[in-house]
Amino acid sequence: MGNVITGEKEFFKGIGQIQFEGLESDNPLAFRWYDENRVVAGKTLKDHFKFACSYWHSFNGTGADPFGGASHIFPWDEKTDVIERAKDKMDAAFEFITKMNLPYYCFHDVDLVDYGNDVVENERRLAAIVEYAKEKQAESGVKLLWATANLFSHRRYMNGASTNPDFHVLAHGAAQVKAALDATIALKGENYVFWGGREGYMSLLNTNMKREQEHLAGFLHAAKDYARANGFTGNFFIEPKPCEPTKHQYDYDAATVLGFLQKYDLLGDFKINLEVNHATLAGHTMQHEMQVAADAGLLGSLDANRGDYQNGWDTDQFPNNAGELTECMLVFLEAGGLKGGGVNFDAKIRRNSTDRADLFYAHIGGMDTFAHALIAADAILQKSDYKKVREDRYASFDSGKGKAYEEGKLTLQDLRDYAVENGEPATISGKQEYMENVINRYV
Amino acid sequence: MGNVITGEKEFFKGIGQIQFEGLESDNPLAFRWYDENRVVAGKTLKDHFKFACSYWHSFNGTGADPFGGASHIFPWDEKTDVIERAKDKMDAAFEFITKMNLPYYCFHDVDLVDYGNDVVENERRLAAIVEYAKEKQAESGVKLLWATANLFSHRRYMNGASTNPDFHVLAHGAAQVKAALDATIALKGENYVFWGGREGYMSLLNTNMKREQEHLAGFLHAAKDYARANGFTGNFFIEPKPCEPTKHQYDYDAATVLGFLQKYDLLGDFKINLEVNHATLAGHTMQHEMQVAADAGLLGSLDANRGDYQNGWDTDQFPNNAGELTECMLVFLEAGGLKGGGVNFDAKIRRNSTDRADLFYAHIGGMDTFAHALIAADAILQKSDYKKVREDRYASFDSGKGKAYEEGKLTLQDLRDYAVENGEPATISGKQEYMENVINRYV
Amino acid sequence: MGNVITGEKEFFKGIGQIQFEGLESDNPLAFRWYDENRVVAGKTLKDHFKFACSYWHSFNGTGADPFGGASHIFPWDEKTDVIERAKDKMDAAFEFITKMNLPYYCFHDVDLVDYGNDVVENERRLAAIVEYAKEKQAESGVKLLWATANLFSHRRYMNGASTNPDFHVLAHGAAQVKAALDATIALKGENYVFWGGREGYMSLLNTNMKREQEHLAGFLHAAKDYARANGFTGNFFIEPKPCEPTKHQYDYDAATVLGFLQKYDLLGDFKINLEVNHATLAGHTMQHEMQVAADAGLLGSLDANRGDYQNGWDTDQFPNNAGELTECMLVFLEAGGLKGGGVNFDAKIRRNSTDRADLFYAHIGGMDTFAHALIAADAILQKSDYKKVREDRYASFDSGKGKAYEEGKLTLQDLRDYAVENGEPATISGKQEYMENVINRYV
Amino acid sequence: MGNVITGEKEFFKGIGQIQFEGLESDNPLAFRWYDENRVVAGKTLKDHFKFACSYWHSFNGTGADPFGGASHIFPWDEKTDVIERAKDKMDAAFEFITKMNLPYYCFHDVDLVDYGNDVVENERRLAAIVEYAKEKQAESGVKLLWATANLFSHRRYMNGASTNPDFHVLAHGAAQVKAALDATIALKGENYVFWGGREGYMSLLNTNMKREQEHLAGFLHAAKDYARANGFTGNFFIEPKPCEPTKHQYDYDAATVLGFLQKYDLLGDFKINLEVNHATLAGHTMQHEMQVAADAGLLGSLDANRGDYQNGWDTDQFPNNAGELTECMLVFLEAGGLKGGGVNFDAKIRRNSTDRADLFYAHIGGMDTFAHALIAADAILQKSDYKKVREDRYASFDSGKGKAYEEGKLTLQDLRDYAVENGEPATISGKQEYMENVINRYV
Ligand SMILES: [Co+2]
Ligand SMILES: [Co+2]
Ligand SMILES: [Co+2]
Ligand SMILES: [Co+2]
Ligand SMILES: [Co+2]
Ligand SMILES: [Co+2]
Ligand SMILES: [Co+2]
Ligand SMILES: [Co+2]
Repeated sequence: MGNVITGEKEFFKGIGQIQFEGLESDNPLAFRWYDENRVVAGKTLKDHFKFACSYWHSFNGTGADPFGGASHIFPWDEKTDVIERAKDKMDAAFEFITKMNLPYYCFHDVDLVDYGNDVVENERRLAAIVEYAKEKQAESGVKLLWATANLFSHRRYMNGASTNPDFHVLAHGAAQVKAALDATIALKGENYVFWGGREGYMSLLNTNMKREQEHLAGFLHAAKDYARANGFTGNFFIEPKPCEPTKHQYDYDAATVLGFLQKYDLLGDFKINLEVNHATLAGHTMQHEMQVAADAGLLGSLDANRGDYQNGWDTDQFPNNAGELTECMLVFLEAGGLKGGGVNFDAKIRRNSTDRADLFYAHIGGMDTFAHALIAADAILQKSDYKKVREDRYASFDSGKGKAYEEGKLTLQDLRDYAVENGEPATISGKQEYMENVINRYV
Repeated sequence: MGNVITGEKEFFKGIGQIQFEGLESDNPLAFRWYDENRVVAGKTLKDHFKFACSYWHSFNGTGADPFGGASHIFPWDEKTDVIERAKDKMDAAFEFITKMNLPYYCFHDVDLVDYGNDVVENERRLAAIVEYAKEKQAESGVKLLWATANLFSHRRYMNGASTNPDFHVLAHGAAQVKAALDATIALKGENYVFWGGREGYMSLLNTNMKREQEHLAGFLHAAKDYARANGFTGNFFIEPKPCEPTKHQYDYDAATVLGFLQKYDLLGDFKINLEVNHATLAGHTMQHEMQVAADAGLLGSLDANRGDYQNGWDTDQFPNNAGELTECMLVFLEAGGLKGGGVNFDAKIRRNSTDRADLFYAHIGGMDTFAHALIAADAILQKSDYKKVREDRYASFDSGKGKAYEEGKLTLQDLRDYAVENGEPATISGKQEYMENVINRYV
Repeated sequence: MGNVITGEKEFFKGIGQIQFEGLESDNPLAFRWYDENRVVAGKTLKDHFKFACSYWHSFNGTGADPFGGASHIFPWDEKTDVIERAKDKMDAAFEFITKMNLPYYCFHDVDLVDYGNDVVENERRLAAIVEYAKEKQAESGVKLLWATANLFSHRRYMNGASTNPDFHVLAHGAAQVKAALDATIALKGENYVFWGGREGYMSLLNTNMKREQEHLAGFLHAAKDYARANGFTGNFFIEPKPCEPTKHQYDYDAATVLGFLQKYDLLGDFKINLEVNHATLAGHTMQHEMQVAADAGLLGSLDANRGDYQNGWDTDQFPNNAGELTECMLVFLEAGGLKGGGVNFDAKIRRNSTDRADLFYAHIGGMDTFAHALIAADAILQKSDYKKVREDRYASFDSGKGKAYEEGKLTLQDLRDYAVENGEPATISGKQEYMENVINRYV
Repeated sequence: MGNVITGEKEFFKGIGQIQFEGLESDNPLAFRWYDENRVVAGKTLKDHFKFACSYWHSFNGTGADPFGGASHIFPWDEKTDVIERAKDKMDAAFEFITKMNLPYYCFHDVDLVDYGNDVVENERRLAAIVEYAKEKQAESGVKLLWATANLFSHRRYMNGASTNPDFHVLAHGAAQVKAALDATIALKGENYVFWGGREGYMSLLNTNMKREQEHLAGFLHAAKDYARANGFTGNFFIEPKPCEPTKHQYDYDAATVLGFLQKYDLLGDFKINLEVNHATLAGHTMQHEMQVAADAGLLGSLDANRGDYQNGWDTDQFPNNAGELTECMLVFLEAGGLKGGGVNFDAKIRRNSTDRADLFYAHIGGMDTFAHALIAADAILQKSDYKKVREDRYASFDSGKGKAYEEGKLTLQDLRDYAVENGEPATISGKQEYMENVINRYV
């Protein structure tokens, strides 16, 4: 475990570094499942997950919602100097990250330091806080999983950033991305993410969807070319979401993003960062989205959280469902893990979770749930007949005519003749309830 | 108008051919908007829509639902001989189609005649009724918009057809498709549709999604090769739907189908048949789905119906919302119409609509709503500033740096420099409410 | 039409009073349907609707959403003195209201003037601006349809107001309601509304639902008793909403509110204020909610807006669907209108509708859609067989045994014997498609 | 454990009685959690749950869905004589029930024996099979948890049963209910259920909702009076569901049913039977619905199953989510269990679960999940601070002014004065994530 690092001031007083205490513990400030050194399927839990803390929800998120203002009042937001205030926040962030033993963090440009309307001044501010982040990373050993630019909060992006009908706004988005890429490179960030919060439409009536999507593709190419030319060797990720804040977002879900990357020749450099709550808002399970991405070789990174099945907006709650996550971890393990990314807690404590400890409880619960799920999934793969049942279902394609079909050797006439020769097929159960019980045996 | 043709027996007694009577009419058995000869945007309404009657809902649909058995009892289902019964049904169908002046019809193989478990016998039955259909088409002038094979109702397809884990079942699906293609060719069908009702999964736990999707692609290639080799020159359509009866269907929505066609090299021959209720079940508006398809050159055909926004299953109600359809018709007209297809009423009268006239009311309402919507959309395009407002929004990309960006000539650094030079952009309204009012002015 | 009144400064320069110009007009700043003096079903449109402007969305709503800050920057928000700033806003409000010819307005306490944490100071501020409002009302003839207290935005209400587990917070809610009631009485407000934005729960795990609901009931009784004792003779309204910002709100929908009012003996004084977007979020049509309220004699007032059927949160868009509203207006007319309330535009222009004219377009579209719908509904009731078809369906209960049943005179045995004697019933169509066509004939 | 009883023929050959083997077992045909004799919170699991088998899904459910016919072919459906066939089915049912050690069963009239259109003949058939059921109950010790009449499948009910616009149809519904009540009494059924599958509307346009609801209330009174007069002392249950097969069902959810029972003076005799999938279709969690019912003293019985959060219809899958059920069991235990009812598996194996063993796997999984959840809930209540945290939140109402408020002694003015005197309240966290972690510690 790394050392806890604090700045001048300790922001989370009274809470020390969270330790693994095992299942018997009822200490709410201890891990019960997440032993970072435990080896599962040949790797430590730490290496499997590469857990990351999200700067935005934890250190900028005020608890405000469409019906109310800030409920979280942060002691690191008090200084008047922009950079000094940003440093306080970063002190708080690294204190929390190291107390939680999170090996990684993630940020948007505007999370680190407040931005104004002056591009050059914003670049200067970001560069200043990046220098400080370098020190904090060095001191703590914490690494940057990914960075991104926030191209959705400022009013100038109200009609989109790279898909804005006004080229002038697109250029501002590019300026932010350039600076964010520079920061990523400076901090040895392992990946860079695009989440296009306003890259979609509010109404088709005033939108040229085709032209906007072409602009988006051009933007991604320009960003990629710049980063590669400046030494960035990590992955680019697209994070799909169906809607909110837009009525419709172009990066709707994994299948849509896959089609887009294919069409605009971006498959080589871009992969997908999947968020649980975005999956369910798109009408999919997270397992489904992970399988779609994995089948295409694009399972890059995960934003860990959960939605509320009874509410229709992005609630970004912390994960707590071990059963559902176990099914996700089956895909995770069978896919050989993530391509370059990790598990980032894009999750926020509730508006009314106002104790300083709440942020710890939330992360502890999330990390324990992931650990629990991975251990269960590994047991299912190692000990049960889960894999065998599934493989056996497709045995008819492993040899004979079925194999010939897979090899493209049979015509429609051949297939029809096979049907005639072999009569009505036997009825073969899908055994769904059996499989569900197998999962539950190990959760 | 074509002649009404009946068989030995008139099934819809007391109802003659439906006439256009105009907006002043309050005759419930007349058209108020649909004047088939009215020219809109350079074409008659008849040619724009190529309205088609769905055999399945209108002549096979019993009104049964998951909680109750048949409520529609058909007089054409009384004979004991399979072929004779099928001919009665076809007499009823062509009587209805010609009384409604529908220029086209569509069917699944099993709609025309009952199928059993013997492939060869099914082929014989289909061939027999196809001969009769040829006569009816010749007599009436009614044409076949598209045909398809039902690969979802028989229990053998409970685990999928071309995506069934058992090759033997896949072969049966192929046998049906071959016969349905033969029928399509014999009847000069203009298109052929694939709707994969069970091509998806009930549970990911027992599913190899990648292998199943590859099997699906191979199946489509085999079908296409067979049809092309046998003289079929029409379009193939994929009809997307997100779920039901499966938990997840592979052809989820237009964007997913587009990605699939791209990946498996099927873009040349396949287009998309969009259904309104499937669009909304997938979380999209129909306008959106049409725009996605149109932008990719894949707007092939439409299944006209509507869902219920408060209920979560495929209600397949008849269209009655002129406002929503007007927005669809804007996309339709701007895309230059459909690529090879038409407007098929994949819609069913309610379980409790048991009067013989109800089927007429339903189709009249649907056709009038489409006509109303197309006329409104044309007026919007001709008379209002709808197009201009939208085009003007993107003017910054029509020349100068914006144009250079579209041509791929600007780097990220160029864009950033442009932002610096030009300062904070002006705030430009999206004018959504204005545009909504423009639409309402013409509906 | 009333006079336009402005303050020292004209805030909506270049836009005069909106006039009725009729269907032939294509002036985007004119009414096409809403002629306030047109008599429909015995009353002017003005009297039917009692259209009201919502202070909050139109003069406080910044366009912010969970993913971005303010996009609407208001010129009436510039002064530093709290009361002076509030007066500027009120000048802008009355200018807009009179330019739109809206006969009513509605507000929350905190809409009129900024509140701080000091109860007495807040009372003083509210009283001060209420004095100014009296003058503006007198000058313009505009009236107060209803007022309410905002018990959801301040962080103290994050766990609820009258349902807060902490009595101390409940008392603060009561203080606000008392002052808001005083304001309502002073301004001759015709009604008073309770919308319990946080009166529900975020998690059942930390909630005693029964106790919280009892506290809510007690709170309503206390408020009612105070108001009655101080001369208020108008209606109290509950506004149902299923969720957001809470996971679950106690006033879920009309049926739930009805049960609550019954249980806690509040039926005499309370009625329901229904919002369209809340209806659809609860899984109902607005027609349904209006019918439920009307059947219980509780159809008090309407919040006019619309949701987005593809998005799962409260989008509060302006009404634009004449077809749906026509079905609502059928209920409205058959119920004899609203009990004391009116039609309040609880609707907001989009985040990216940043032109000053956008607020006018939005209200014009909404008012025209309501007028269009009411005129259509009246025509349906006057000219078509809509009422007769529905009444005839129930004719078997108007006499004989059916009537005896309605009068409670038949036992289960009697009913069974009737069934035996009369054999299998005839099949009677529900004629739904016919009825849908009837509606469309008049929209 | 009771004895397995079979008829002449053993229908589930090769599967013996399911035994409890404990958590170490990996026998898929054994219980891992459900030890019927295990005592939890003072009662055996058997007595807590009173598990019941649903006749309809398990012995009549063919696997058909809106897109396909039967997939389950039953060996007990082969005989031609109606009563003999019904006896075979009952033999199969009691064999299964006793092999599963289910202490109870439930049925609709038409589940037991096929009904035709002749009321008297149907009564005769039901009486005949009831005689046989008496013998089977006596032989096995299995008891009848509840019975009901199916008033939704026959086409005569397409417009409703007790809410049908035609009195003649209502009388037929009454005839069925009378016979079903007679059967319930004869078989010493402990409860009687009303689920109004078609008691709602397909379209408001042709519906008089008020009159229909009054008819429904009259019907329930008549049924209750008949049953009471004939010696039935058990509970009547209403089972809420929001929609499907109707667009809207009158018994929408627990709160709606509560309001209805109140309004029509049925609270004394009627309680609520809650189904999990119906709860989620209504936009609620099952915990919520249970709490609403429990708070009103109406938590009568449970229909155990689960829906699919990504699909919008009633999937009636077997329960498998121990985490969610644990939250339900917290409500269950705190409410002191069910009022007269039990846990009935209103759940069906998937269309493609065609092995005879699948029905066993499904029930085993369901029973184990319930047992697991109850044991976890009990541990939470016994060992954790769950109850205390919740109770402490409301402590301000246990004494002083808060208590006075609960007792109705404070006016609005008193409350306002309290707020003024006590200043701004302290911020108190809702500790939601903490509570979620507490739950997960014991699941
Ligand atoms: Co995310
Ligand atoms: Co999210
Ligand atoms: Co279709
Ligand atoms: Co459909
Ligand atoms: Co409202
Ligand atoms: Co709203
Ligand atoms: Co049920
Ligand atoms: Co159900």
